[in-house]
Amino acid sequence: MSKLRFSIAISLDGFVAGPDQSEENPLGIGGKKLHEWATPLKVFKEMHGRASEGGEVNASDDVLRERFAGVGASIMGRRMFGPGSGPWGEDPWRGWWGDEPPFHHPVVVLTHHEREPLELKETTFYFVTEGIEAALEQAREAAGGQDVAIAGGASVGRQYLAAGLLDEIDLSIVPVLLGGGEGLFTGIEANDLQLEQLRAVDAPGVIHVKYRVGHG
Amino acid sequence: MSKLRFSIAISLDGFVAGPDQSEENPLGIGGKKLHEWATPLKVFKEMHGRASEGGEVNASDDVLRERFAGVGASIMGRRMFGPGSGPWGEDPWRGWWGDEPPFHHPVVVLTHHEREPLELKETTFYFVTEGIEAALEQAREAAGGQDVAIAGGASVGRQYLAAGLLDEIDLSIVPVLLGGGEGLFTGIEANDLQLEQLRAVDAPGVIHVKYRVGHG
Repeated sequence: MSKLRFSIAISLDGFVAGPDQSEENPLGIGGKKLHEWATPLKVFKEMHGRASEGGEVNASDDVLRERFAGVGASIMGRRMFGPGSGPWGEDPWRGWWGDEPPFHHPVVVLTHHEREPLELKETTFYFVTEGIEAALEQAREAAGGQDVAIAGGASVGRQYLAAGLLDEIDLSIVPVLLGGGEGLFTGIEANDLQLEQLRAVDAPGVIHVKYRVGHG
Repeated sequence: MSKLRFSIAISLDGFVAGPDQSEENPLGIGGKKLHEWATPLKVFKEMHGRASEGGEVNASDDVLRERFAGVGASIMGRRMFGPGSGPWGEDPWRGWWGDEPPFHHPVVVLTHHEREPLELKETTFYFVTEGIEAALEQAREAAGGQDVAIAGGASVGRQYLAAGLLDEIDLSIVPVLLGGGEGLFTGIEANDLQLEQLRAVDAPGVIHVKYRVGHG
């Protein structure tokens, strides 16, 4: 069966976002440092329509390409898709990414408000209001046998983790301390979770570790 | 100049000991899981006088041998050396390790109570009452140009880290969640610390990462 995967960058003290998160600064204080290893990469620029800029190729580049390979659909939270949380209104938000989103596969958005699917170039957004299990079911169907990735935010990944629905977690452990903020494992019962280390990759300024998630 | 190094096993949620630490269970609930990768190793058995048992050889074995190589002296806290914290008394405690401690070099013990050096086989324990800087000075002298290692506990490592005296930290990141307990970076001001990732090793059930510590 297709796997549900979640990859996220985490500080050495266990935070996926810094203190004082807000709509203007969703990564919190210092949270940007979690992604500094990724933004200069060739694969990152390619995915965001800036292939002409070139970019760095190192061990992280390979890991990111592998993470995106074999993914047939993504799931994301409402705040990852756009600002606000109320009804969609008459001229609804079409995502942060313009008319060519970087996903190139169907994306299921978790929301409390119904909405027709939104078709953009190579990406259709589906809006699911019945919770994380329904969203997963729809994403699995859309993925056509390939894996499903959680595109974020962290709280969405944590909900799937807590519900025992996650199969693999990829952590990019960054050598910064944030001193507070959003903890990846906050509210997860430690005894309910078994993590099996599948592979670790030493890349410049970051370690990428893949764990299989078991539930006890 | 000789470096001050500290190596410690840490859970994926950032704890170096589990909840409810006590004199009987200094690792706290679940804390033993942090060391399960180490105890079956050949190098571990050799160091603890059980070479005849054999033991496993894998990537962790190499990392541990490297950690001990080039170390000319160690520093440890009073509770790492023995139980209690009061005056030494007339027939003072001689350490947990019998007459052949596994260090094979001088060991400086941080204590509030003066005591003459204790000479055992290949290891002399020195007792320093003037605090961590005096202990480091004495350990550096005893190391004869080689590196100094912090043998534990975690709080001793944290004191040196907070004081800006640590040069390298080796983390063994273990795929368990402890859900609480002693945090490695608790009380460390995040902005005061720069960590540069020097190397990561993928070993069975653990990642070993070496960081250079800088202070801003």
